[in-house]
Amino acid sequence: MAGRMFDLIAFDGDDTLWHNERVYRMGRERFAKVLARAGVRRSDEDVERLVSQTELANLKYYGYGVTSFVMSLIEAAVELTDGRISGTDVLEFLQLAKEMLTARVELFDGAAEAVGALAETYPLMLITKGDLLHQRAKAEESGLGQHFRAIEVVSTKTRDTYSSILARCRVEPSRFLMVGNSLRSDVLPVLEIGGWAVHVPAPLSWAHEDGDPPDAATSRFFELGSLRSLPALVGGLSTDRSA
Amino acid sequence: MAGRMFDLIAFDGDDTLWHNERVYRMGRERFAKVLARAGVRRSDEDVERLVSQTELANLKYYGYGVTSFVMSLIEAAVELTDGRISGTDVLEFLQLAKEMLTARVELFDGAAEAVGALAETYPLMLITKGDLLHQRAKAEESGLGQHFRAIEVVSTKTRDTYSSILARCRVEPSRFLMVGNSLRSDVLPVLEIGGWAVHVPAPLSWAHEDGDPPDAATSRFFELGSLRSLPALVGGLSTDRSA
Repeated sequence: MAGRMFDLIAFDGDDTLWHNERVYRMGRERFAKVLARAGVRRSDEDVERLVSQTELANLKYYGYGVTSFVMSLIEAAVELTDGRISGTDVLEFLQLAKEMLTARVELFDGAAEAVGALAETYPLMLITKGDLLHQRAKAEESGLGQHFRAIEVVSTKTRDTYSSILARCRVEPSRFLMVGNSLRSDVLPVLEIGGWAVHVPAPLSWAHEDGDPPDAATSRFFELGSLRSLPALVGGLSTDRSA
Repeated sequence: MAGRMFDLIAFDGDDTLWHNERVYRMGRERFAKVLARAGVRRSDEDVERLVSQTELANLKYYGYGVTSFVMSLIEAAVELTDGRISGTDVLEFLQLAKEMLTARVELFDGAAEAVGALAETYPLMLITKGDLLHQRAKAEESGLGQHFRAIEVVSTKTRDTYSSILARCRVEPSRFLMVGNSLRSDVLPVLEIGGWAVHVPAPLSWAHEDGDPPDAATSRFFELGSLRSLPALVGGLSTDRSA
């Protein structure tokens, strides 16, 4: 197609296309309530720090996602209560996991329109981290699943992750655009291998997903306040090129 | 290549290429010990039945794998102790999860030789269920990772699962061979879409993976006692065809 700028456009899922972090926030609030009921006297900051440390230490075992998060909550709860956590409280955490895994998927404003519009011209892919089953279920429930040629659930998003996906699809990095809310996972590694990236910051984000913004000189990087403007940006880039 | 019979050969991982069920058996034994220590007076059969029921009821939330298994053990333990499970015991289950996730990968007899020999002639793929991170780590640690063009970690193994993988690789089902220990997951759905399947029964298998053996009339089905004879079987099929 004349002026078509990319051979593949990929989207992150959690906190890019649909809300995610707020379900985790609800989880942390429920955790704090259970602890208060169990008589734990620690500052919110202390609790938050221990949960964060436990999550990060466990990433190498459990990877990303709800089950990882809840197993870390249970571990932190045993520690914070000096082993006095009750069976009822443990059960409440397991119940929390099931609620988080079946929470309704809510798209961000403009997500359906952007994905639908771009799917008319470009092959689209979803590249997302987390529980395999959960991520696929969310893609399905979002109603956007039909627009993606493939859904890749990955355990990390590094340069190698992107390089190997692109090699498998026979797409040159310079013809690839990634759209996501995380500088660390969706933007920087893609720019580093020579691809293009659009950063759409989420209203809530997990601190671990922060990163330094890319070098301002990079002409392959864009930041948008909403997915609503993505089709215009992609269209504009293509016009530029064909001019 | 003259007489090449298949365009793709795929292997299951757990209990096909490497031992898996015995790690779960170790997990169930540890669970029984913790319960005995907690004063639970129930027959082994009762305990086994409740654990199985809990696992199956939770598959729709957690999928397959170690974290799913251990979250189900914790849930069953709370129930069997009427909520009197101690924090120390819960921590022991979490420790068990980490041990299971980092247990050394041990290949079955003949696995390395079969995969190495077939990789010289055929594109190979690993199609496996379970925790994304854990399955990739096992493939890596097994030393066989280099032989696979792709590793697909899937949440179910149905006809649709196989059809969509084959469509993506542009491989006809009649040119596809799947090798695995599970009739239900590795053999029946593949035969049903017109593919070929080799069943290599494992010494230990999870009951949930059983299935009725395929119709004896199916000429696309084989059963082997060991992976050691797989290259000869594949070679023999190709010679038949080219004769």
